[in-house]
Amino acid sequence: MTMRSEIGEQPDVFRTALADNHETMTRVANELGDTAFNYALIAARGTSDNAARYAKYLWAAHNRIPVALAAPSLFTSYQRPPSLGGALVVGISQSGESPDLVAVVTEGRKQGRPTLVITNEPDSPMARQADLVIDIAAGQELAVAATKSYTAQLLAVAMLSAALDPEHGQAELGELPSYADEVLQQEDGIAAIAADFADMRACAVLGRGYNHSTAFEWALKLQEVTYALAHPYSTADFRHGPIAVVEPGFPLFAVAPDGPLFDDMLELLVEMAGRHSRTVAVSNRPELVEAARHGIRLPEAMPEWMSPMIAIIAAQLFTYHLGLVKGLDTDQPRGLSKVTRTV
Amino acid sequence: MTMRSEIGEQPDVFRTALADNHETMTRVANELGDTAFNYALIAARGTSDNAARYAKYLWAAHNRIPVALAAPSLFTSYQRPPSLGGALVVGISQSGESPDLVAVVTEGRKQGRPTLVITNEPDSPMARQADLVIDIAAGQELAVAATKSYTAQLLAVAMLSAALDPEHGQAELGELPSYADEVLQQEDGIAAIAADFADMRACAVLGRGYNHSTAFEWALKLQEVTYALAHPYSTADFRHGPIAVVEPGFPLFAVAPDGPLFDDMLELLVEMAGRHSRTVAVSNRPELVEAARHGIRLPEAMPEWMSPMIAIIAAQLFTYHLGLVKGLDTDQPRGLSKVTRTV
Repeated sequence: MTMRSEIGEQPDVFRTALADNHETMTRVANELGDTAFNYALIAARGTSDNAARYAKYLWAAHNRIPVALAAPSLFTSYQRPPSLGGALVVGISQSGESPDLVAVVTEGRKQGRPTLVITNEPDSPMARQADLVIDIAAGQELAVAATKSYTAQLLAVAMLSAALDPEHGQAELGELPSYADEVLQQEDGIAAIAADFADMRACAVLGRGYNHSTAFEWALKLQEVTYALAHPYSTADFRHGPIAVVEPGFPLFAVAPDGPLFDDMLELLVEMAGRHSRTVAVSNRPELVEAARHGIRLPEAMPEWMSPMIAIIAAQLFTYHLGLVKGLDTDQPRGLSKVTRTV
Repeated sequence: MTMRSEIGEQPDVFRTALADNHETMTRVANELGDTAFNYALIAARGTSDNAARYAKYLWAAHNRIPVALAAPSLFTSYQRPPSLGGALVVGISQSGESPDLVAVVTEGRKQGRPTLVITNEPDSPMARQADLVIDIAAGQELAVAATKSYTAQLLAVAMLSAALDPEHGQAELGELPSYADEVLQQEDGIAAIAADFADMRACAVLGRGYNHSTAFEWALKLQEVTYALAHPYSTADFRHGPIAVVEPGFPLFAVAPDGPLFDDMLELLVEMAGRHSRTVAVSNRPELVEAARHGIRLPEAMPEWMSPMIAIIAAQLFTYHLGLVKGLDTDQPRGLSKVTRTV
């Protein structure tokens, strides 16, 4: 029940962050505006790594900042950190505790680079190493599978982007809570779709561009909560090999709101329907929803760049209800703990 | 049979490249030494993306160069390329033809950045866009699943690293062909292990550090050739969620030569043995080979940084023989073509 109530809190988490974090974002954006860097190096793992994937697209597309994802073992086990000249070093972590991620931020500081941490724990070891800290203020998260802390991280990434370039997105972000409410209202329909996958052992989750993040995060939730072997792919990577695994009845989940990548996903889905895959499409374009066996509708007017914060809520509900149908403990999956400390 | 003969050609491909490409590498390294850049941005997909993963570790650890993997859709579909100041723009592709990857190199050139292409086709569209071209000279590859072109890409990455810093690795690379021969001689044992997985539908492949690349490439080969749902993970990412999917009999493939990450993998494997996973360990440390149900021994003296070029040969043989046991066409998997053009 904790996972379900945390999913339901997301519209309020959005409202609070939009109101309370505005000033922090302006301050951080001003500091970064005075700082010379030519790319961002982000250290993150698990769910937070998927928030980094969102930053990789959003910060590039709206702010022209290239994003590299750090390889933490270079900083810890190998003790061979790269030279960080030109980097803005960013850590993203719900708990701010994993030693390998803390080590990346610490090395950034040691090399005299600007450091920024996005976390739910502003007094954590990682936050204490950083010049700039953004508290995502998602409130305490008790379910092991992260939900509201993930979307709060995405919103922090998006608010910072908008603060750096107010022409891009500042106004649209205000609609986020009501988009989230719209998806939550579809819970009964989503639960009915999930029931069709009670036998599922394996699946692929497809998304590209901004929703590369959603594909990875949906797959991670399915792994954590339903123990399914869920693979995330961009549609392009999928065509470069893994597409070979699709056989009749194979479950495919596709996240594709309207945008420049839409036609590519539609074409792939029609091809996969020809191979009789069992497909769920998440989109605000009716063609895609109709091409699939099951459809989940996203808010019509939502811009594509905001869609990862909304589409994942549908995916969280799907995953939660699939866990229930399978009779699993959705709050405490086997073999996992809330805070993972890797070195 | 083509896949098998291309696997067998690898020692000779190594010998030829080590002899013939030495001069090119020195020239490219000299050019790069005169060029100001503070990170490398690599565009690649599929198998070549796994060669980029190797560069991410090797170039950082031996040359202090941070590596970012490009998001090609930003350059094509979204038409929003990031600002590439400070970047060395690198393309890695067997065919050099995929338009989205060509677009990244073209944008690098347009922004006045240095560009380098590593390819098996030095007259390809991608190579024609680059200032510097390294021909991996693997010879024509006919099987759809890449084998010798992958290890030839890894060797190009390693030879360039050694040319940039001759203290690191120049001498050791000469041993590569004989290490490859050693692994090929184990074919009968590897084929016997593969036979134990004839029922396999899904599995996880674990590797970290340098062998993050091997985990991804082994998983991709299993997907392409045996249609298994094979997931690659770093051991650290595996602990941050996916570990929940392991149940009795679950196939786990672990690549862990001696090195600073070895103890972590050994600990994980012992834990997974407690959950009765069906494990294959690829290592030059007897403890790991013994902790697993099946072991594949790597050459004793091989340095860890060279191991991705050798461990993958064991993985290719395993995959090929598993395909045979399953009665599949190992040269022409369903739904794939040799050259994939994505936009």
